[in-house]
Amino acid sequence: MTTLPSDLQKAAEFIEKHDDFLLMTHERPDGDAIGSIFGLLNLLRNHGKSAEAVLPDEIPDKYLSFLPSNYRTDISSVEIAMHQCCIILDTPNRSRVGIGPGLKCEQIGIPIILLDHHPDNMRYGQINVVQPEVSSTAELLFMLSKELRSWEVTPDVATLWMLGMVMDTGGFRFDNTSATTLRHAAELLDLKADHHRVMLEMFFSKSLALQQFEAELFNSHLRTDFEGRFAWIYIPETLIDKYRIKMRDTEGLIEILRSIRTADIVALIQRSNDGYKVSLRSKDSRYSVGWIARELNGGGHEMAAGGKIKNTNFDVAITVLSDLVQKVLNG
Amino acid sequence: MTTLPSDLQKAAEFIEKHDDFLLMTHERPDGDAIGSIFGLLNLLRNHGKSAEAVLPDEIPDKYLSFLPSNYRTDISSVEIAMHQCCIILDTPNRSRVGIGPGLKCEQIGIPIILLDHHPDNMRYGQINVVQPEVSSTAELLFMLSKELRSWEVTPDVATLWMLGMVMDTGGFRFDNTSATTLRHAAELLDLKADHHRVMLEMFFSKSLALQQFEAELFNSHLRTDFEGRFAWIYIPETLIDKYRIKMRDTEGLIEILRSIRTADIVALIQRSNDGYKVSLRSKDSRYSVGWIARELNGGGHEMAAGGKIKNTNFDVAITVLSDLVQKVLNG
Repeated sequence: MTTLPSDLQKAAEFIEKHDDFLLMTHERPDGDAIGSIFGLLNLLRNHGKSAEAVLPDEIPDKYLSFLPSNYRTDISSVEIAMHQCCIILDTPNRSRVGIGPGLKCEQIGIPIILLDHHPDNMRYGQINVVQPEVSSTAELLFMLSKELRSWEVTPDVATLWMLGMVMDTGGFRFDNTSATTLRHAAELLDLKADHHRVMLEMFFSKSLALQQFEAELFNSHLRTDFEGRFAWIYIPETLIDKYRIKMRDTEGLIEILRSIRTADIVALIQRSNDGYKVSLRSKDSRYSVGWIARELNGGGHEMAAGGKIKNTNFDVAITVLSDLVQKVLNG
Repeated sequence: MTTLPSDLQKAAEFIEKHDDFLLMTHERPDGDAIGSIFGLLNLLRNHGKSAEAVLPDEIPDKYLSFLPSNYRTDISSVEIAMHQCCIILDTPNRSRVGIGPGLKCEQIGIPIILLDHHPDNMRYGQINVVQPEVSSTAELLFMLSKELRSWEVTPDVATLWMLGMVMDTGGFRFDNTSATTLRHAAELLDLKADHHRVMLEMFFSKSLALQQFEAELFNSHLRTDFEGRFAWIYIPETLIDKYRIKMRDTEGLIEILRSIRTADIVALIQRSNDGYKVSLRSKDSRYSVGWIARELNGGGHEMAAGGKIKNTNFDVAITVLSDLVQKVLNG
């Protein structure tokens, strides 16, 4: 009796047979995107493969110490064509691929392998490994590495994948943390992942200015609606300027909102060019913020998503958002 | 070839042979103490043993939903003598046993089994299971349960021990999180520990008032010394009153302090009857706050400890503390 190879096995075989890889992930890369792409980059290079990564967006400061010295911040279609194939990580649809300005994912003329854990992945590659039950793309890559027979996972790779797993599970706090996730994390520690460094840089390395900014923001701008079931904060640009904060360093804010007991849905609202950018989290699988995000021309997971309100009037924008939240809360 | 039974095996054999247990833990019980004692209480009762727990101090609100309906808040020496033996959990020395007013640990006239992971445990029992390399007493109890052959760990017990492990590792963020710790946590999930409930109640159930209190406290009272290497907060009673906070519900504050990048040592300072109570945390094993705590008539781990300054003059108290911190920071 023979069993068909899984998508993961197909991806592993493909990688073993090829020699030259271009790696990409989504725009505004988060911990999972960063840990995943640089872990895989190092793994491939450690095994004699030629590989390079493209990461065009600005990276939050807290990840800077994890970045390798050389990665691309831009690429042309001619340069893409010089690679044998492209591996796109953690990116559910073409429009979110962080490919840089002036180029579209459709223009990638080489085979694409997708590795992702987003349930709404559009499977736009030639090989599509999409496993929503896995905590993070970093964990999925660790599972991939087990299919790559006799490929050793070195401590630097293990550390980067630990970083990705930790950030997409909120430090093993979210419901996507399974027994398997914890066992994979244990295996990464066996492989000498630097747990101390990951936790220190991710959770114990806030700048004093950011701590002060957070305290004033929550002291002055925290709002709740629907008997506390919806907690939200609008981040005024004046406060950003006062503490000289970079917006990309504020990803922890939504976790503080999420810590409020009564809040089933939380939102972080920022001004963007043509309206407002909204980040959303749900604390209960009955309340899909994925749906709200899709209504707001965005996307993501059911419990963590984001969208945009194209209206520059603040009160109108908040009403649009509140109405959607109310619909979800009322089932 | 025979090997001697370990202390853990001796404790397991002792428990199997006895029928009636009194359980105690330390005063001001934390998550590990609470998860440990009630997990063991349920385990013993589930296996037909008679057992009761004494927990005299007030419990922080966030643990209330995890408490069983019946436990003692007080006990007399006559009532103690009616039990076959006493199991004391997570309590390094006699003076910290939460035995209630008017009674001393020395007066316990029945055999004592100690189970603890504090390195400074004074081994004051007849059987002393002291394993500092284990993350938490809850994890140690799970290891004990594996020595109790054919004793099933039910979901309620698994949940309580998960609670203890999670709280003593800061949600798997502290350096006491080993690969073994993560594997034990995975096994508890296999046994149907309610990960969602533990994480929700511990990290996502802050009251709005507590969130607002924290924001104002950090906005107005955060101080740093020694180029940011020492970060501390004095909690004024006026602020406690303003937001109607119970001091016992503020244990998360020190974790926020710990998140500041430059801080090697952090302290939370509160007024007590005859001076000031100081909670201390270190972020680097080179800097022992255990030593500072012992100088301040207290104790604990090297990385997490507490003591008291017996002087009601605030400036004097802060100088005493700062001098000790400076000594530790300067090695």
